[in-house]
Formats: sequence, structure tokens, C-alpha cells
Amino acid sequence: MVKCMEKAAVIGVGQTRFGELINKGYRELLLEAFNEAKNDVPKGFDADEVQSIFIGNLGCGGSQLGNLSSLAAESLGLIGVPATRVENACASSGYAFMLGAMAVSHGEYDCVLVCGVEKMRDVSGEKGRYWLGISGDTEWERLAGMTFPGNYALIASRHMYEYGTTREQLALVSVKNHKNGASNPKAQFQRSITLEAVLNSMMVAYPLTIFDCCPTSDGASAAIICRADLAKRYTDTPVYVVGYGAGSDTLAVHTRKDPTTLSASVKAANKAFTMANLEAKDIDVAEVHDCFTIAEICAYEDIGFCKKGEGGKFVMEGHTQIGGKIPINPSGGLKSKGHPIGATGTGQIYEIVKQLRGDTEKRNRQVSNAEVGLTQNVGGSGASAVVSILRR
Amino acid sequence: MVKCMEKAAVIGVGQTRFGELINKGYRELLLEAFNEAKNDVPKGFDADEVQSIFIGNLGCGGSQLGNLSSLAAESLGLIGVPATRVENACASSGYAFMLGAMAVSHGEYDCVLVCGVEKMRDVSGEKGRYWLGISGDTEWERLAGMTFPGNYALIASRHMYEYGTTREQLALVSVKNHKNGASNPKAQFQRSITLEAVLNSMMVAYPLTIFDCCPTSDGASAAIICRADLAKRYTDTPVYVVGYGAGSDTLAVHTRKDPTTLSASVKAANKAFTMANLEAKDIDVAEVHDCFTIAEICAYEDIGFCKKGEGGKFVMEGHTQIGGKIPINPSGGLKSKGHPIGATGTGQIYEIVKQLRGDTEKRNRQVSNAEVGLTQNVGGSGASAVVSILRR
Repeated sequence: MVKCMEKAAVIGVGQTRFGELINKGYRELLLEAFNEAKNDVPKGFDADEVQSIFIGNLGCGGSQLGNLSSLAAESLGLIGVPATRVENACASSGYAFMLGAMAVSHGEYDCVLVCGVEKMRDVSGEKGRYWLGISGDTEWERLAGMTFPGNYALIASRHMYEYGTTREQLALVSVKNHKNGASNPKAQFQRSITLEAVLNSMMVAYPLTIFDCCPTSDGASAAIICRADLAKRYTDTPVYVVGYGAGSDTLAVHTRKDPTTLSASVKAANKAFTMANLEAKDIDVAEVHDCFTIAEICAYEDIGFCKKGEGGKFVMEGHTQIGGKIPINPSGGLKSKGHPIGATGTGQIYEIVKQLRGDTEKRNRQVSNAEVGLTQNVGGSGASAVVSILRR
Repeated sequence: MVKCMEKAAVIGVGQTRFGELINKGYRELLLEAFNEAKNDVPKGFDADEVQSIFIGNLGCGGSQLGNLSSLAAESLGLIGVPATRVENACASSGYAFMLGAMAVSHGEYDCVLVCGVEKMRDVSGEKGRYWLGISGDTEWERLAGMTFPGNYALIASRHMYEYGTTREQLALVSVKNHKNGASNPKAQFQRSITLEAVLNSMMVAYPLTIFDCCPTSDGASAAIICRADLAKRYTDTPVYVVGYGAGSDTLAVHTRKDPTTLSASVKAANKAFTMANLEAKDIDVAEVHDCFTIAEICAYEDIGFCKKGEGGKFVMEGHTQIGGKIPINPSGGLKSKGHPIGATGTGQIYEIVKQLRGDTEKRNRQVSNAEVGLTQNVGGSGASAVVSILRR
């Protein structure tokens, strides 16, 4: 494995608000995110400097548009620039970011745009279930009636059985993330919720209530990555990509040795830590893939923020709150910020870059003096995962 | 731009027969192509040596399966290995190959698997038209009734008007490619056709008859790429990746300055030639994207095998036949070999590797003593293109 330490830097990030954005299409969303990313580069950035585009998208939109790589190039005024769509289910733009960072780290390109987009809110229930469902296992899960909430409910039940994790602990992930999201002007749900509200809300798949599940969302996000040795031309506060890694696993949950461990995440994190020459304890802030509350608890354990089986206790003791040992999902996470599939990965990058620069919009969701951040983006029910580590 | 000269090598290739493979799914097709690629490595290759998978697929299959990156890892016995799906319409696995070669060239991985798969024959007409159609422009083309044959018919008509290209010249592309495909046991159509047959067959969109159009196909293809400095461990006849490049263009044809030039192809070829430090005249054999006969004529011109406007004359004079100046599509091309969208790019790589090693199955489609080969893979109606250059 090569070391890419400080060979690539994020110089600008942009994100639309996530939510129900019925009156905006792929083009408008991408343009809004890209324009914000360009304007986020303090010393100015010319679109012509983009040498390649990596775009994450699942395609569950009802927008009737395909060929999103060329569509992105065209709608961003970058006609001619090589563009590639990367699809890894819910980890699409996390993977796109890794590939973009990889290409820049090795000097293949001086500067690339990584972005992600998804339209989910104008898709009917049946069509939406199909599009999401095919990212899981089809023969053993989807066609038997299993959905993602069902899959994560299995994982949660097993975690409760094996480690004594409680419904309250799961719910506290949601309470924390909603609290953070309430201070994020880009979040879909900008309001706090109580523990009781989570526990007493509609049951989706035991033990997960509707407030244990992230919403469906529209949105786009973007990050401009350039060679680290060129970064100071653009900004005095570059954020370096110091590690990345990815892994895969079986599509179906029942085939895994231990359903409570997302081994794709473990592999991804280990690779990223090795590349960065860092450990979990060195991370100051992280955005993880809390598609369901149990997923965040698994993420704590899989990344190594706490020991196996202690994720429930870890959130209950407040360690993952802003101000805690390792603040997780200060953006509100997928739960409160929203989860426009293809835009989630670069949305996590957006938040970590803002956190490391200390310029989140509202001070009460700013993690003090964070130097090293991590993102973890998961596809399917843990069938793939990608982890990136950034440092200011 | 970096030079990747001889930093990556293809050590094994595999391909299913292309055609109507109703009784095989994604998994079976991928496994067949991968197993052939493994067995194609003379000194032996262990699947465990694959460090990353890049899979090209459009997704127009009726197979109801998503998350193809993880599905590929799982069905090939490579659970845990990072895997990414690359979607660039009909150029999907051409792009996947470029990304795989790039990652290996820079030493990110020692060895990667690039593959592509598509199931098209079990998709209904309406659904198929939708899936293909969204890879073109939607607002100005698809929703107005325009299809890909229609788009390429516009390009052909303009080429005839501007340069005096004739229907016979277009048809000769089909005649040549069917002749080549007749000697390719992996081709969908293994039979020669006459000029008269092409001209008198059903008109699809003037001037393109059904025999000017490639078929829809099922199939998979695979290439194993490793670091050039490790290649001799696996084979005495590695084929080096010496250049690659890509470009994009508008989705719609009418917005282009010159509809007869696929500028994405021109950009892709120029980059690949610059990286390889070669020119069009140095190429001994090429596989180009003849989704329609006119597309092959444009490819001659866009890559630089002949002057602008002279493509029709170029095929008529026999220069692109096996034995001619620059044999094009010795495999039979998309026209005769078939065009399973996601599998086409690595299918082109398969053929060029075989040609450069001099081990095509039948001697009458072997280009004598070819040292340098090129592949050109196009997405949409020229909205994207990727070119790779290989050398033995």
C-alpha cells in the first residue's frame, strides 16, 4: 500500500440543503453545490482548472436522466472534461472521493471535482423500494420481503442479544444527531427530539422506530481536491487527505459470520489508518453512516472508537456528543441532515472540512480545535464501505 | 499529465461469448469471464491477488440486481476486496479499465481486476429503449422521440452531405466487421454478410439499415492488470498499458459545433497518444466503438487514422481490413461481436491483448505481427469517450 500523506488537499466544499427539493433537478442541485465549492476557495478558483470529475449517484431519482457523468460536465460548464460516475449504492460519493483523492495524490491530475447527487423525494413508494432494495441482496432478502430497515433491525436485535444494547441506547443516537442537526442550516430536519419521542414513535421494524431511521432526501454535495503542493495557491487553510481505504462484504446479512460487525467497515478503516499512520484515538471528529441508529453504534465499534459490544454504552455516556471524547456526526448525520444516497459521501466530506477549518455556520455545532477528521460511508447493509481521513 | 509508459500490464483476459444468453445471470457471466482471465495467465494466478475490482455496467438488465460492485466481489469469491462500479453509459468498462490501469500504474495496487457485464436480451422493448435512451439527452432528444439510431443517422446524413460519404461506404463497415466476426468464436453473429444485404435490409433511420446497427447483447468480459515490474512473474507475454485518455461532450448532438466530429473521442485519443508518446500511424490494430457503421467512420477520423471527411473512402479502399494499413475491429466489433453495454470496453481490451500476443483462436482474423493496439469506447452519442493504448 502506498502512503498518500498530504499529497492531496480539499480546497473547497459545497452542499445544497438536503431535504425535499421537488423543484430542483440534478443539474440545479449539482450547480448549486459546485458553485458553493468554487466560492468556498478563498483565493479564487476557475472552473477550467478541473481536470476530471468523479460523480456519485445511485440513480433512484424519478428524474428520467442518465449518463450523469457527462450530464454533470455539461451542466457545470465543464464540457470536454473527463467525467466518471461511481456507483457503490449508498457509498457512491464516498468511493468517488477516494478515487478522486487517489488520482490527485499520485499526480494523475492537478485538480479534480468530486460530487454526488440524488433525487429521492419524487419517487413513488414502490419504485423507491425497488431502487433501494436492489442495493441489498435480491434473492435472499428483497424478494422475500426484506427491506433495509428490516436488515438493520436484525443487526440491532442481535446486538441487543449479544451485548445487552438497549432500545434507549439506540434512540440516544437519534437524539444526539437531531440535536446537532438543529444547528445545521443544511440539514433536512433542523429540530431536536426527545428520547421519549423516539421510543414512542411508529415502529418500523423492531427495535427500530421511524426516528431510528434516516429519511429519504434530495440533494447534492461537492469537494474540490488539488495536489497538496499546489493547495496554498488557493487557500491558507487546505484540508489534507491523509488516508483512505475501502472494503466489501456479502450483500446479504445472514451469510456473515457476525452480523453485528460490518467487516467492510473494519477493512476500510484499517487501511485508512495504516495509510495515515494514525489510530482511532487520533481522530477528533467523525461523520459516520447512521442510516439507522444501530449503524452508528456498529460504526463506533468497527472503526475502533470503542470496544466491540460497547457502542451502546459509548453513546449513552455522552462520548460521541459535541464536547465528548470523539464527536460523531456533528452535521446531524444521515438521520437529521438527510440521506440523498449519492450525495451523502461528499456531504460527509463537506462537514469534516468545515469542522477542521473551524468554520461551521453555528458555533454550537463546532467541535473545538479539531485537527483530524474521519468519514465512513457504507453501501447496502454493509456490503461495501469506504473511510477517508482528513487533517488540517 | 503523467507518463504511465509500461507501469501497468495486462496479464490475463477473459470473455464470454456475446449474444442472447437468457439462461445466465450477472454472476454466471462474470464468473465465466473471470475464470477465463485467471486461466489465461500462463504461470498461474490466484484470485487472492486481486486487490481491487472495477466493474463497468449500465444496468439495463432485467435481472433485478443492483450493487454490482459488491455482487461481483461476492460472486467471484473476492469478498472483502474493495470494488467499485463505474458507469459511463456504453463506455462503462472502457472507463473502468482506465481507472484500474491508472491505479496500478501509480502503484496504488499491485493487481486489479477490471470487468464488465450486461444483460440486455431479457429486457422488453419499452424498458430497453428507456434504459438506453436516458444515456442520451432527455429533454431535447429522448422525450422528443429521438433514439440512438436516430442520432447516429443525423451524424451519418451530415457526414454524407459534408464529405460525400455514401451509403455503400457505411455498409462496407458492416461487411468488414461481419467478415471478421465470422472467425470469432466469441461473436454474437458469426457469419459474413454482403454489401447488398446491408443496403437492402430494413431501414431503421435513414441512411442506417438494421445491418448498420449493432445488436443488443448479453455478456461479460474481464482483464487482470498488474504492476509492470511484477508482470513477468505471471507471464512471458505481458501486454503493457502505455497510454489512456478520456473526454466528454454535450449529451445532445444538435448542440455540437460539428456533429460529424466526436470531440470527446478526439480529446481522449490525443491524451492517450501524448501519454504513450505515439501517433495514430504507430497503431497496428484497433478496436473502435462501431455501435453504428457511421460511428466507425467517425472513429477513423477522430483518432487520426485518416483525414477528416475521408473515413468513407478509407474503408472503401480496404485500409481497415485485416491485412490493410490499420486493421479495425478484427473481433467483428460491436456490429458483429455484439454490444453488451457494460462489457464492451473490456471486450475490446480482450481482443487487443489477444491480437498483440498473436493468439486469436483462428488465424484468419489474426493481424500479423501487431505490436501496438488501441481501443476506443464511446458513451451516449459521443457524450464521453475513452481511449487506451496497449503494447506488447
